[in-house]
Amino acid sequence: MAATTCRVSLPREPAILGHLPMDRQLILFGNGFAPPQSVEAAVLGDKAANLARMAQAGIAVPATAVLPVSLVDRFIRDPEASAAWLDASMEGILHRFGAADDDLLCVRPSPVFNVPGLLHTVLGLGQTPAGFAVHARAHGEAFAWRKRREMLQSYGEIAAGIGPEVFEEALEDLVEQGAGERALCAAAEAAYERESGSAFQAPRGQQIACAIRAAVASWLKARAQNYRDLHGLPHLGGLAVIIQKQVLADADERGGAGFAISRTMEDGAPRIHGMWVPVGPARRKLPLSLWQPEAAGRGEAALESLDPEAHAALSLLAQKLEATFHDAQRFEFVVGEGRVFAMSTEPARPPVKTAMRIACDLVERGMAQPDEALMRIDPLALEQLIHKTIDPMAKRDVIGTGLGASPGAASGHLVFSAAEAAARRAKGEPAIMVRTETSPEDVVGMAAADGVVTARGGLTSHAAVVARGMGKPCVTGAASLQIDSARRKLTSGSRVFSAGDMVTIDGTTGEILLGALPTVLPEISADFATVLGWADTHRALGIRANADTAAEARTARDFGAEGIGLCRTEHMFFKAERVAVMREMILAEDKQARDTALERLGPMQREDFEALFAIMAGLPVTIRLLDPPLHEFLPNREHEFVDTARALGVDVESLRIRVDAMREVNPMLGHRGCRLAISHPEILDMQARAIFEAALNTQARTGTVITPEIMVPFVCAAEEVRVVRARIEKMAERIERERGLKPQFKIGTMIELPRAALGADRIARECTFFSFGTNDLTQTTYGISRDDSSPFLALYRERGVFQSDPFQKFDVIGAGEMMRIATEKGRVSRPELTLAVCGEHGGEPGSIAFFDSLGLHYVSCSPYRVPIARLAAAQAAIARKARRN
Amino acid sequence: MAATTCRVSLPREPAILGHLPMDRQLILFGNGFAPPQSVEAAVLGDKAANLARMAQAGIAVPATAVLPVSLVDRFIRDPEASAAWLDASMEGILHRFGAADDDLLCVRPSPVFNVPGLLHTVLGLGQTPAGFAVHARAHGEAFAWRKRREMLQSYGEIAAGIGPEVFEEALEDLVEQGAGERALCAAAEAAYERESGSAFQAPRGQQIACAIRAAVASWLKARAQNYRDLHGLPHLGGLAVIIQKQVLADADERGGAGFAISRTMEDGAPRIHGMWVPVGPARRKLPLSLWQPEAAGRGEAALESLDPEAHAALSLLAQKLEATFHDAQRFEFVVGEGRVFAMSTEPARPPVKTAMRIACDLVERGMAQPDEALMRIDPLALEQLIHKTIDPMAKRDVIGTGLGASPGAASGHLVFSAAEAAARRAKGEPAIMVRTETSPEDVVGMAAADGVVTARGGLTSHAAVVARGMGKPCVTGAASLQIDSARRKLTSGSRVFSAGDMVTIDGTTGEILLGALPTVLPEISADFATVLGWADTHRALGIRANADTAAEARTARDFGAEGIGLCRTEHMFFKAERVAVMREMILAEDKQARDTALERLGPMQREDFEALFAIMAGLPVTIRLLDPPLHEFLPNREHEFVDTARALGVDVESLRIRVDAMREVNPMLGHRGCRLAISHPEILDMQARAIFEAALNTQARTGTVITPEIMVPFVCAAEEVRVVRARIEKMAERIERERGLKPQFKIGTMIELPRAALGADRIARECTFFSFGTNDLTQTTYGISRDDSSPFLALYRERGVFQSDPFQKFDVIGAGEMMRIATEKGRVSRPELTLAVCGEHGGEPGSIAFFDSLGLHYVSCSPYRVPIARLAAAQAAIARKARRN
Repeated sequence: MAATTCRVSLPREPAILGHLPMDRQLILFGNGFAPPQSVEAAVLGDKAANLARMAQAGIAVPATAVLPVSLVDRFIRDPEASAAWLDASMEGILHRFGAADDDLLCVRPSPVFNVPGLLHTVLGLGQTPAGFAVHARAHGEAFAWRKRREMLQSYGEIAAGIGPEVFEEALEDLVEQGAGERALCAAAEAAYERESGSAFQAPRGQQIACAIRAAVASWLKARAQNYRDLHGLPHLGGLAVIIQKQVLADADERGGAGFAISRTMEDGAPRIHGMWVPVGPARRKLPLSLWQPEAAGRGEAALESLDPEAHAALSLLAQKLEATFHDAQRFEFVVGEGRVFAMSTEPARPPVKTAMRIACDLVERGMAQPDEALMRIDPLALEQLIHKTIDPMAKRDVIGTGLGASPGAASGHLVFSAAEAAARRAKGEPAIMVRTETSPEDVVGMAAADGVVTARGGLTSHAAVVARGMGKPCVTGAASLQIDSARRKLTSGSRVFSAGDMVTIDGTTGEILLGALPTVLPEISADFATVLGWADTHRALGIRANADTAAEARTARDFGAEGIGLCRTEHMFFKAERVAVMREMILAEDKQARDTALERLGPMQREDFEALFAIMAGLPVTIRLLDPPLHEFLPNREHEFVDTARALGVDVESLRIRVDAMREVNPMLGHRGCRLAISHPEILDMQARAIFEAALNTQARTGTVITPEIMVPFVCAAEEVRVVRARIEKMAERIERERGLKPQFKIGTMIELPRAALGADRIARECTFFSFGTNDLTQTTYGISRDDSSPFLALYRERGVFQSDPFQKFDVIGAGEMMRIATEKGRVSRPELTLAVCGEHGGEPGSIAFFDSLGLHYVSCSPYRVPIARLAAAQAAIARKARRN
Repeated sequence: MAATTCRVSLPREPAILGHLPMDRQLILFGNGFAPPQSVEAAVLGDKAANLARMAQAGIAVPATAVLPVSLVDRFIRDPEASAAWLDASMEGILHRFGAADDDLLCVRPSPVFNVPGLLHTVLGLGQTPAGFAVHARAHGEAFAWRKRREMLQSYGEIAAGIGPEVFEEALEDLVEQGAGERALCAAAEAAYERESGSAFQAPRGQQIACAIRAAVASWLKARAQNYRDLHGLPHLGGLAVIIQKQVLADADERGGAGFAISRTMEDGAPRIHGMWVPVGPARRKLPLSLWQPEAAGRGEAALESLDPEAHAALSLLAQKLEATFHDAQRFEFVVGEGRVFAMSTEPARPPVKTAMRIACDLVERGMAQPDEALMRIDPLALEQLIHKTIDPMAKRDVIGTGLGASPGAASGHLVFSAAEAAARRAKGEPAIMVRTETSPEDVVGMAAADGVVTARGGLTSHAAVVARGMGKPCVTGAASLQIDSARRKLTSGSRVFSAGDMVTIDGTTGEILLGALPTVLPEISADFATVLGWADTHRALGIRANADTAAEARTARDFGAEGIGLCRTEHMFFKAERVAVMREMILAEDKQARDTALERLGPMQREDFEALFAIMAGLPVTIRLLDPPLHEFLPNREHEFVDTARALGVDVESLRIRVDAMREVNPMLGHRGCRLAISHPEILDMQARAIFEAALNTQARTGTVITPEIMVPFVCAAEEVRVVRARIEKMAERIERERGLKPQFKIGTMIELPRAALGADRIARECTFFSFGTNDLTQTTYGISRDDSSPFLALYRERGVFQSDPFQKFDVIGAGEMMRIATEKGRVSRPELTLAVCGEHGGEPGSIAFFDSLGLHYVSCSPYRVPIARLAAAQAAIARKARRN
């Protein structure tokens, strides 16, 4: 855990490097050398490990020497001794490596994880006077001079920091005059001497040693260090360096270099495509295959036409790579010395729909196991496949049009700032955020909003990129809109819209529409079902959905939810026609008036529960008792005061005083959750009755036994659960007397306060399940109110105080530790305790991996997140098993 | 820990009781029996353990048999087998006990801890026909019949539940007619037969067995069970039962019984006093000593006159008891059989001033060690000695007079409800709560207020009792005041006062005065100093004070504080003349305007710090950086808006919009603490500069090196401390460049958020001390806002959901566990880490014991709590060492 934040200081080892046979640590493979048995990326870095795997698979790889991570760590720890060693032993290493006089060598960093600003491949090193003669003899003097000039430029940059523009300037006129390679080389050498202050005289070993030092230096640059600090990555153990024999493509008239992808990006068919640059002065990028759009109209330029043999060799190479890496690949190649060499390879990373097709294809062909194939699909990318679209039958009142920057449809209240978006979100209300353009400070608001509209920017604008990442509908470049954030007005022609107005956006067509339009779900492909089917067999976590309405419950089941993990009963009361009764209940002057209102609310709740039970057809349904402070239901706007005062038969002013008296300084920490159930047992009674009656009614109608799971929110002490449970049990007995049938039910607690986690052993004695409310747990553990946090959280992330928003990415150090304590203590008291998560983190893949590691029973997330959670849970379980082996 | 809340179920043992030699477990002592070697109250119960200690000390104690706790536990676990055993073996036990035919026996519960509703002593049991004959022969028939009648009444009550009133009624007429004892006994026996439905025929053993069963049954009554549940006391291990030979005082014409206290309550002089009832029909309570006020005008009735020999014996007994128990005692005695017997003893519990005198006297005489004597003084009672009084020179504008119900003087804003009191308290403002009368629901408000006034009630009214318990000034029965809580008005004659008006109350004279009058501290007695001197040598915890002003700092030093543990810098800005500048700073439109305001605030802070440093003269001073959200400084009332708008040169309406925009939904979890220091580094710079300049200035003037301890509030992540520390260090370097002198300082963190506790290992790497802010830690651990909690916390305590207010009595399960985790983790990273508490719990004795057990370095509390904390810390350390031995 320490790795995620602390600034690693580099431990110093005794300076005994000079005495150790460091060259024995070199790993050699490729032409003439046997591939290593173990190809751990942690030892070789990613790039070298892939090269080694290719060599193991019999794929042509140039001769390669790797300075493994352990050796580079020594360079980092003791740069002086290492430099001395490098200078002293490089010639010997090259000899052992079998580098001939005329071999050219390149040096490439091979990091274990990506870090920005690393040195690129340094080409054309390792030159000797003898080599020059061999080149001149074999390929002509021009070739030899060119190679020497290229080496000078490479070496000049790494040894003396001479930028490429210096050499370009020095050669420019000569090139225009059509000067020969010898003259160009002389000009480059003169430039080198001028810039570095001394004549070039680096023997072969020194050229390589210098490049290795440059690779290590690039790893230690401030930018890379800061990046690692910020992302909690270690400074040691992250870098290996490759020395590789170069393929002399330009000594071969059919030579060239490029990249290829083993499959199409559209449908995942096993047909290579890519681009290459053939040898020669033109340096034109040409397509590989005739079917590529780039080949349209100039088929003769494609490799497939120019050199069908090389194209076939590449296709064969692509197949070998897929067979080796069990996935579609994007690889770099060189054609030269009469062969095709693979220089590097990485996953092809197609769009998620294609990725699923490829995964299915590889498994069908027996080229990959389902668990392997599953790991290749980004769970968050699934959102792209499951977005809602606007019902085609709906009447569209278009108020503006822009670019469809992130697919899907969403409705919400117009908001003009991140704070407004967060405020709506906090109230459970949808929001569409409207900005002239977005900046990183808006990310928090975008996360809180359901959709984003910008007046400026294209498909790669900040808003577009971020929204796609979040899987949220986004329209950019809606230039017809004038946005006045200060006055919170949106003008489109002669029409003016205000904050709070309801709009719908279509992130596919780019339309902004007035009102909340009905939406429909996309059709789901067979591959989607296949992949999620595999996921279901591999995951350990159950997946439920947070659903308060019949529509949400239906969506949840369609997406494969195994039950409802959280039904927020208060959402049923925020509906306009019900909130009036709710207000009458809360503001009732006496018990009788309150009971009358409750008698009207009860049947409404019962009907809601009946609908949920019917849709879930016996799957578990977890119902949370009323959670928000009662004042959240009370009037806010003038006309609400008037309506409520009339309904209660009181005057507006005295109503206002009573409402004001109920407000709280810190409602988040106020009179809410089970505190309400204890202070207002009549509300608890109403809810318990509605749950039991709905369960028995549904049971009678369907014949399936319904066992609702009643969840007590905001618990801080076991005594609270005891009091609430006793009251619920009393109601169950009463219902049994009335109906002659015993209601079945379970009682559990939300664990969302630190004290509940710390006292979980006591609480577990009072109930049979825990569901972690990770939102409130994050708020209280951090002491951050989500409603107010936007301004300073954005600042914290900007300044690197926080790496991520803890409301998006679950915080393992704080809230995670609370969960670990609660899980352990709860299980001590009740080994069979059911453990779950029902906060928003339940649908976030990184958080799901943590929940899987705690051995929870299920996560519950929003219905649209269910497929993501299914896949993420499978990946977490597979990765956990792999770690264990 | 489980014991504090769980409902203990009684484990069942195999029913092998009948086969065990239970009578071997009996413990016998007193006349003829050797006292037991070990006299643990946990084995014998309190009463029996004291009797045994008396027997050990050679004090006359009647023959006593104790059924120890382990035996009574068996009765509780298996009542049936126990009943059988009791019936079968009681006669044998009495034989072993040496009970003669004519001995009378009593049965008394001897609980380990007090529980309400236990059986009282049952007298006159163990009678036999043979014994009747012996009594008749020795003391006359009347005596024998009376004893038999008394036994019938005792037995009738425990065996058949016949209340005393039944027998009184049955005998009433006969007594009036002057009937003899034989007739009275016959009438009692007839009443017994009538009420119980059968004739009396209980042999001696059965009488005793029945009383033992009644004692156990009283322990298991619902009332006692609930009490134990509520107080987390165990159901087992808490009760022993005594069988004791009765002293036949009424067979002795000089006989009688009563209680005596070994010292005077006024000055602790070793002179006994008390009351007794001599044998005879009058049953008049008479004083023991001539000096007692009860003896005034009827000196002949005092025991000292009636029986100087017995009085001398009692005086000698009192001395022996003090020598045995090392404390002043209150003991029960019987004079009979020509001797004085001690029946029970307990600490005398004098007023605290006397208790300190006695403690000093006992130590001076070598009768007690200081550590023992220290344990006898209730730390909270010290508050009575250290109350402020109104400066006699101050001009008094009396607006009402009542009874001086709780001593001391206090000034504060008038408040009319608990909620208002809590709100003032939350803002750090003093409050005087005014009520017509108080009820338990007002307790929370009284705790939050600085003083209490009621219009009704006397010196023992609810308000008076509770206020004395809290050590707060209180005036009751101020009948001239009319209190209108709804309109929040106080009327006195023609004068009307409103909520918020400043008043001062004198809880000694009972006066209510207009305005905030200056107060002075009482003179402290030599005993006070002696006792606290002992405390200082025994305690492990350092004691500092929370002080924001020079006056508080001076009080703190006077009371023996060893430094300032918390200086709340924001309190310096709430002063009227400064808050205007603060508002200008917060609402500044640009950097320049803000810097101008900060330049005015800086010197004010510096002067405040200089005053504190000068008073503390080199003792540590811990200064907390600005903590509350900035909007707390902004205008609230209309005239403030007008003033501020004028100062800023803006219109009131636009000011109102800006102020509203700064308000937070949950300010407790808002933009405060170090979040401010990070978002507004210019404020941090101003504070750091003021601290460093004040330290260097004071250092220059006094020659003492000042090392301020700068405390970073509301930390949730180590990165925050790193950022703030870096900025402070930069300012220190700047000051060093300006002054040529390096400022000394330490940097520490408030640990007041759960995440800070959980991440304490990381945070400890960034700073050298932790100070636990137990108030905020309680708020976030519980999810309770102190501002809003009054209504439901009162309800929770009423219904037994909570046993205490966690803001008064520190919660060990939640916040305590967070502290334990933080302490452990912090010490792992930095073994020399300084650990402290600066919340209000730092002055609460029960909480101090917990902090001592964690091995903290110091607690910091309000200045007036310093003596309490010194004594409580000593008691905690002494108790901890005793547990270890």
